[in-house]
Amino acid sequence: MNDVISAMEKRRSVRTFENEQIETDELKLILEAGTYAASGMGRQSGKIIVVQDKETISLLSKLNARVMGADIDPFYGAPTVLVVMADSNVPTCVEDGALVMGNLMLAAYSLGIGSCWIHRAKEVFESPEGRELMKKWGVTENYRGVGHCILGYTDPNKIGEAKPRKEDYIVWA
Amino acid sequence: MNDVISAMEKRRSVRTFENEQIETDELKLILEAGTYAASGMGRQSGKIIVVQDKETISLLSKLNARVMGADIDPFYGAPTVLVVMADSNVPTCVEDGALVMGNLMLAAYSLGIGSCWIHRAKEVFESPEGRELMKKWGVTENYRGVGHCILGYTDPNKIGEAKPRKEDYIVWA
Repeated sequence: MNDVISAMEKRRSVRTFENEQIETDELKLILEAGTYAASGMGRQSGKIIVVQDKETISLLSKLNARVMGADIDPFYGAPTVLVVMADSNVPTCVEDGALVMGNLMLAAYSLGIGSCWIHRAKEVFESPEGRELMKKWGVTENYRGVGHCILGYTDPNKIGEAKPRKEDYIVWA
Repeated sequence: MNDVISAMEKRRSVRTFENEQIETDELKLILEAGTYAASGMGRQSGKIIVVQDKETISLLSKLNARVMGADIDPFYGAPTVLVVMADSNVPTCVEDGALVMGNLMLAAYSLGIGSCWIHRAKEVFESPEGRELMKKWGVTENYRGVGHCILGYTDPNKIGEAKPRKEDYIVWA
């Protein structure tokens, strides 16, 4: 097994973060990895919005919790939130955005940074407040939310083992 | 940059394959990597069907071409086709399946095996012929097609450079 496959098997979703912000150099590597995700017909339909200011993270958290109908912080206090969107005019936009998310999470793991996919981006960026944020960021209305990749340092000793894979995951035809 | 991020930046979609079948030990590593993809709430909604017999690949190719309305082989003669499906009862099924596809493609690259995502799995497995194949494979009707990962050895000298990433891929909020 090589480092790439080993990373895939060891990466876990992380939901406990230290307060310290991640290094910008590491973040840039993670972002670059995200942009190199495969996309349908190479159209690069994805877009990544980097959110690190506490006020905006707090707003995104509230909008996300509202979609859930719960009064919690769905971002678990992570100091960085990457909003992954994709061009809804491209038929493969959800799949393209998901591959960006996958690269972000795996690249983060490879640098010792914890991550987790937080859903409900579609609903948040269909709301008037979400639309307002997009306008502020200069993201045109044809983009839709695909996911949030939360990032932060974490205690590696708190990362558990993966659950066993389900028995019928692979079918040999 | 580490091996994981480097693999993400160097991996390319491959559409020219040698006839030789890939080694089963390598295929098993790729499949295992696929099963370790993250999934919404850890539900492992994905499923991977391994197709290597020429007759079934030819049938899948014809069904796929029919969706396209074209008379070509959408699998480019690849000797192995992995059909990735996901449980349509799970709201994150497309995203979950896409992450499986991403792991399969990147793991293949890390082992020197060429791959490409071929779409139209949703449409193929909604057709009566696709449903018949699912029944033969023991895949229940709640599964939907997400993608085909074609695999095969390729001439590394024929793999080009990645296109430049679009300028507005990353937005710093």
